[in-house]
Amino acid sequence: MSRITLNNAAELIRSNDCFLILCHRSPDGDTVGSAYALCRALNAIGKRCAVDCSDEIPGKYKYIVEETSAQLDFEPKCIIAADVADRSMLGKKYDGVTPDIVIDHHVSNTLYGKNNCVIDRAANCENIYALIKALGAPIDRVTADALYTGIATDTGCFKFSNTTADTHFIAAELIRLGADFENINRVMFDTKTVSRLEVERYAYDNLRLFADGKAAIVAIPHNVCEKAGASPEDLEGITSLPRQIEGVVLGITLREQRDGSLRVSVRTHPPIDASEFCKTFGGGGHLRAAGCSVAGSIEEATQELIKKAEQTLDEMK
Amino acid sequence: MSRITLNNAAELIRSNDCFLILCHRSPDGDTVGSAYALCRALNAIGKRCAVDCSDEIPGKYKYIVEETSAQLDFEPKCIIAADVADRSMLGKKYDGVTPDIVIDHHVSNTLYGKNNCVIDRAANCENIYALIKALGAPIDRVTADALYTGIATDTGCFKFSNTTADTHFIAAELIRLGADFENINRVMFDTKTVSRLEVERYAYDNLRLFADGKAAIVAIPHNVCEKAGASPEDLEGITSLPRQIEGVVLGITLREQRDGSLRVSVRTHPPIDASEFCKTFGGGGHLRAAGCSVAGSIEEATQELIKKAEQTLDEMK
Repeated sequence: MSRITLNNAAELIRSNDCFLILCHRSPDGDTVGSAYALCRALNAIGKRCAVDCSDEIPGKYKYIVEETSAQLDFEPKCIIAADVADRSMLGKKYDGVTPDIVIDHHVSNTLYGKNNCVIDRAANCENIYALIKALGAPIDRVTADALYTGIATDTGCFKFSNTTADTHFIAAELIRLGADFENINRVMFDTKTVSRLEVERYAYDNLRLFADGKAAIVAIPHNVCEKAGASPEDLEGITSLPRQIEGVVLGITLREQRDGSLRVSVRTHPPIDASEFCKTFGGGGHLRAAGCSVAGSIEEATQELIKKAEQTLDEMK
Repeated sequence: MSRITLNNAAELIRSNDCFLILCHRSPDGDTVGSAYALCRALNAIGKRCAVDCSDEIPGKYKYIVEETSAQLDFEPKCIIAADVADRSMLGKKYDGVTPDIVIDHHVSNTLYGKNNCVIDRAANCENIYALIKALGAPIDRVTADALYTGIATDTGCFKFSNTTADTHFIAAELIRLGADFENINRVMFDTKTVSRLEVERYAYDNLRLFADGKAAIVAIPHNVCEKAGASPEDLEGITSLPRQIEGVVLGITLREQRDGSLRVSVRTHPPIDASEFCKTFGGGGHLRAAGCSVAGSIEEATQELIKKAEQTLDEMK
C-alpha cells in the first residue's frame, strides 16, 4: 500500500503486460476518459489491455467506448484502477479486489492499491495525460477525445475552482491533437433528456423563493421522477437550480427517494456554510455543497428547512 | 481605411496619447473586457486613456468597470474601437465617428476605421492580449479578469467551435496572472435573474415537441416578458432551449415583440440547415442559427412553423 510517483507508475506499466483497467461504479466522464485513454495508449505501445466497470457505461460516452478495442479476451496480470477513490467505489463486480496500480486525483484516496499514484489535479485525465507522456505513447484523436471528456466534465467545462492553468494547457494540447470539443461539450453540457426536461419543468413550477429572495427551495416527489422516467443520471446537477437565481445564497433541493425518505442537497454562496447548515440535520459535506436527510412528509420537511434557513440568514444580518 | 497588423497597432499606440476606447452598443463581455483591459494596460505604460459606450454597461461587469479609472477628463486625440464590427455598432452617441484604430476579431468587419487591425480569433480579448504583450505592458489581476471575461463569454466558456488551442493557452496565462475565473463564470453562466426564471418557467410549460421528438417549438408572448419585467439581457440565449432537448435537431423560438410582430429564432443540429429553413420566411443567418419574422397571431404562426418543420424533416428521411 505504497505511494508511487507518476514515473514509478510508468516504469511498472512498461515492465508488465495484460492489463485490466477498472472504472469506478456509477461511471462518469473522468473515470471513463481515464480508463479508455490509458487503454488506447497501452495498446499503441504493444500492450494487451482491457477496460471494465461494475456498472454499465452510459451511452453518451459511445464516441470513446465504441471506438476502442477494450475487450477482456486474455488473462489479466496487472489491474489498474483509474479515478477510483476507495475500494468500495470499484463496485459489486470487483468487490474486494486490490488493484496493482491506482491512478487517481482524489486527495481523499484511501491508498487501497498495491501501488498508489495519487496527484491532486482537477481531473484524473490530467494525470493520465501526464502518464501517457511519461510512457512516450501517442495520443490519437479518440484518446484526445477521452482525455478532454474527463477534463471538461470534472471542471464543469473549466468553470469550477479546481481548474488550473495546467488544465487549460492540457486542453489546448488535446484540441491541437484533434479533440472534438464542440460535440463533446454539447453532449455533456447542452443536452437534456425529455425525462430531465419533465423534472426541471416540475422544479421550475414549484420553486419557492423566501427570506427576501436570499433563499430558494424546491421539493421533488418521487412520483414526479417516476412518471418522467428519470434515471439518477437524468437528475445529475439538478440540485444547482435554486442557487442559480440571482441573489440566492442558500439553495435547497429536497428529493423524495423510492422508499419515501427525504434527501436534502444544500448549495450555498458566501457567506453561508452549507456544511454547518446540514449538520443541524445530522448531515455534512463541503463549505458550499452539503447534504442531509430529513424525516416527515415533504411539506413538513420543507417547512422545517425554511424555518432553519430563515434563522441562518437572520444570524448573518 | 487600411488594414494594419497588431505590431502596427502597437506602434501607433506608442506614438500617441490621450486615447478614447469605444465599446459596441448593447455591450457584451468581449467588448467591455477588450476596452477596459486595453485602457488599464495603456494607463500602466503612462498613457491617458478613457472608455465609453453609447449604451450603459450592464452592472454584472462592475468587477472590471468599478476597478478601472476610465473617465474622459481630457481631450481625446486617438479613438480606438474595440470589438466593433461596423460603424453602426458604435451606437447613437458616436454616430458617424471614424475611429483612428479598430481592433476587432469579426471577419465581417467593414474596415471603417482609419487603421483596421482585424484578426479572426474566438474573442477580441485574444487580440487585446496579444496587443498588450506587443506593447510590453503589464497584465494585473483586474486586466486578467477583463480579458478572461471576453474570452469566456465569446466562447460559451470554451464550448463553442470558435475555441482554439490558443484560446486555452491565453486562458491558462490569465489564470496564472490571477483571473478570478470561478466568480466570473458564475456571474456570466450560472446566475439567472428572477425575471429570467419567470420567462424560462413559461417556456418550459409551453414547449411543444413534435415530429417524433425531432423538433421543438416554444412561443413567448410579449406580456409574459413584460409581467416578468424581463429586459433583453434577461432573454439572452433563451433561444437555445428547444434545441437542448435530446433528439431535437430543429428548435424554434417565437418571441412576440412589443408591437405585436413575431420574431423567430431557429437553432439546429446536423443535418438541418437553419438558414435554409428561415429563407422560406424571408429571413436568414448561419448554418445552425438563423432568424426570420412571421405574420399572423402567435397560434397561426406556430402552426405554420410546425408545418414547415415537419415538411423539412420529412425531406430528410
